[in-house]
Amino acid sequence: MQTRTAELDLEVSRIIRAPRDRVWHAWEDPERLAKWWIPHPIACRVVSLDMQPGGAFVTEMSENGEPFVPHLSACFLDVIPRERIIYTNALTGGWRPAEHGFVTAIITLSDHPDGTRYRAQALHKSRADREKHEELGFHEGWGTVVAQLAELVEIEA
Amino acid sequence: MQTRTAELDLEVSRIIRAPRDRVWHAWEDPERLAKWWIPHPIACRVVSLDMQPGGAFVTEMSENGEPFVPHLSACFLDVIPRERIIYTNALTGGWRPAEHGFVTAIITLSDHPDGTRYRAQALHKSRADREKHEELGFHEGWGTVVAQLAELVEIEA
Repeated sequence: MQTRTAELDLEVSRIIRAPRDRVWHAWEDPERLAKWWIPHPIACRVVSLDMQPGGAFVTEMSENGEPFVPHLSACFLDVIPRERIIYTNALTGGWRPAEHGFVTAIITLSDHPDGTRYRAQALHKSRADREKHEELGFHEGWGTVVAQLAELVEIEA
Repeated sequence: MQTRTAELDLEVSRIIRAPRDRVWHAWEDPERLAKWWIPHPIACRVVSLDMQPGGAFVTEMSENGEPFVPHLSACFLDVIPRERIIYTNALTGGWRPAEHGFVTAIITLSDHPDGTRYRAQALHKSRADREKHEELGFHEGWGTVVAQLAELVEIEA
């Protein structure tokens, strides 16, 4: 059902040396999510994390102590605890169409001998959107926050 | 979770004099759906009707015997058999962002003393989009096809 193509999609993948439960908990707990969701030292505030289909996913950011501004406004599409999270910024909470959506994210957690295999895929509507997302720093951005997630949960071991 | 507002949304509602099962069947059966989904005499072809979250919903139309052209390319978001269907054209099958999406539809079926209460709501991101959809003939279009649906299932009584 989810057809992914190299031409339209981007992906970061990482082995996290911590059990799947702990990685999941760093997602579902707003306090924990705020610690790794945006590249440091930018501060993150989790405004809504309603992890069910149609639930709102809203985060804000603040640089250099300035007031918080919008970071992400999205809608959860599918959530399988400890296994998969799908959300899109093409919709907002309650599945309402969004103003400037361009990506659907699929996060997959699976067991790995060293802990957890964490995979984040970004689906776009066109090659142009994929290229733009790449130029905007997809790999640095998503790569950095997944590294921050790993650091957070590995330290708890 | 679904916040609806008069300012952003449009709605058609109708009492259909047929049991809920029959109305549902006219939705889930591609052959039946094709009979009422587009205002007559335009012909409808159901290309994909994968009624599950993430499933593709694709229909085509043909006027005056001309070749079929795209009519709708959408993604099912939530399906509760005999009760509710939610889809959006802001996404395509597999939850991939779409090119020109602007609406999420929520179809609700409930029991009524005379048969079935059928409600179709259209959620937009902005007042401008709602007004544009109205000008494009929302009430005539959606009203007509719901009347066609009623005619189809009432005749089977």
